[in-house]
Amino acid sequence: MILTVTLNTALDITYRVRVLRPHASHRVSDVGERPGGKGVNVARVLAALGHEVTVTGFAGGPTGRVVRDLLRDADGVRDALVPIAGATRRTIAVVDEHSGDTTQLNEPGPAITPTEWSAFQDRYQELIGAASAVALCGSLPPGVPVGAYAGLIRTARAAGVPVLLDTSGEPLRRGVAARPDVVKPNADELAELTGSHEPVRATQDARRRGARAVVASLGPDGLLAATPEGRWRATPPGPVHGNPTGAGDSAVAGLLSGLVENLPWPDRLTRAVALSAATVLAPAAGEYDPHAYEDLRRKVSITAEVSAA
Amino acid sequence: MILTVTLNTALDITYRVRVLRPHASHRVSDVGERPGGKGVNVARVLAALGHEVTVTGFAGGPTGRVVRDLLRDADGVRDALVPIAGATRRTIAVVDEHSGDTTQLNEPGPAITPTEWSAFQDRYQELIGAASAVALCGSLPPGVPVGAYAGLIRTARAAGVPVLLDTSGEPLRRGVAARPDVVKPNADELAELTGSHEPVRATQDARRRGARAVVASLGPDGLLAATPEGRWRATPPGPVHGNPTGAGDSAVAGLLSGLVENLPWPDRLTRAVALSAATVLAPAAGEYDPHAYEDLRRKVSITAEVSAA
Repeated sequence: MILTVTLNTALDITYRVRVLRPHASHRVSDVGERPGGKGVNVARVLAALGHEVTVTGFAGGPTGRVVRDLLRDADGVRDALVPIAGATRRTIAVVDEHSGDTTQLNEPGPAITPTEWSAFQDRYQELIGAASAVALCGSLPPGVPVGAYAGLIRTARAAGVPVLLDTSGEPLRRGVAARPDVVKPNADELAELTGSHEPVRATQDARRRGARAVVASLGPDGLLAATPEGRWRATPPGPVHGNPTGAGDSAVAGLLSGLVENLPWPDRLTRAVALSAATVLAPAAGEYDPHAYEDLRRKVSITAEVSAA
Repeated sequence: MILTVTLNTALDITYRVRVLRPHASHRVSDVGERPGGKGVNVARVLAALGHEVTVTGFAGGPTGRVVRDLLRDADGVRDALVPIAGATRRTIAVVDEHSGDTTQLNEPGPAITPTEWSAFQDRYQELIGAASAVALCGSLPPGVPVGAYAGLIRTARAAGVPVLLDTSGEPLRRGVAARPDVVKPNADELAELTGSHEPVRATQDARRRGARAVVASLGPDGLLAATPEGRWRATPPGPVHGNPTGAGDSAVAGLLSGLVENLPWPDRLTRAVALSAATVLAPAAGEYDPHAYEDLRRKVSITAEVSAA
């Protein structure tokens, strides 16, 4: 089983409106709801790829109940969320039907009490024993210590379970120092971590800081990977137009499934780039188009990078 | 007890953001939740004025449960909502902290089944016997027949209970023909009903269509009333700046409380205008400022209109 951790789960709500105009009143023509938060999105894609997945993290309040009810209906994702007194946050994506653009409103997460954080750590310790890999994804809700991911990485490493970290800011900085197997920053997160805006240099620097492998997502330019086995660039066949929401989470699912299947790095990267582009192309945010995925897999180009050091 | 009917209740959510920019991502700094829908707002103001109030209408799903939980905590409002299979809609008010302006996103209501509509009519019939007055407020959710308010007005009249109607479009047109005691259209609703953009003429026309009294809300210009006892204009002392959300509902509460207290029309109108202006002035949308209300009550000007007919 693959374990994904989402400490700040969300009820993701999508609204369609004709045109979003600030300070006007809008009739929403269509309302969509699904369980969200990065690790939940990763789990959904892993399940679609045929993997057994368990999600953990926190859920509470009426919104948390909806998240859990929707997860129960989703095939192949096992719910191991830890209940909290606070209410799971909502995120609202307002899709403007005229331009196709999305305006995002994200509620802050509920505060986590020390007792809840400690209950989570116990649950994680139980779950990690049965996991073939673990992904730690997204921001930390208030009340969770900034070194949380570093601690969870150490627990996974002690259990011999490979761990991927996808977060930003100080939790990323501290997490990298705890020596995760993979980190997947985007260009901004990588620059914030390393101080360098030059991706090749920055991925190497992030490895020196402790990450065994670094896979930077460069948006339409694909992925740049620095690993102990070599360095590669994986690029989609051309620009893809659509909704980039969840594209990074699909890339994480691609990397993680490739890891547990012991695929060579170029194959993992191909899978990650194809899933990511197929997510941008899918009509629903955060879903991927399986036909586009199959097609794109054959068209991703992989280039080995020659050492600059 | 005063009965208010809200067939399309809502969970009203307020978000504060720094500046709302279309197609950007926003961190919400503050989340507010309260039970909403016009009749629920009217009930809250009536309760604050010291009246016993019962709310009925529909509530369902996780959002409906939140609405009912919040109502239970609100002093003085009795919950007689009828459960439905669908989920109560949400409305999102995004307050831009920079300009103070509000952007509104309103979900469509859940579809009501014929069985649910019939259960509501039974409940209404039971409640009306104990009511001193009833207010029928807001839009009709899908599945409720367009002549719904007309039927509810006939039931109230058969029970000898005075009835106020506050809606728009075809439900208003049909409702007026069923001879309600008071209708409270705004300028647009009145023009749509009568075809006349001249409020004095339009209020008289609406009376000829069946309403015993017509009180038109003219925004910052206050209220214009055409009644069997005479015609009046009630004007606030000056322009009031703030959030007009709920100002019309507060006016309805003023009219209805004045009706059950048998106040003369000028006193009812004074109360309605003062409550309405005190609602615009209150920091939270749909609440009224009790000090501003007491102050404004003394400053509303009432002018009797001389017959033009």
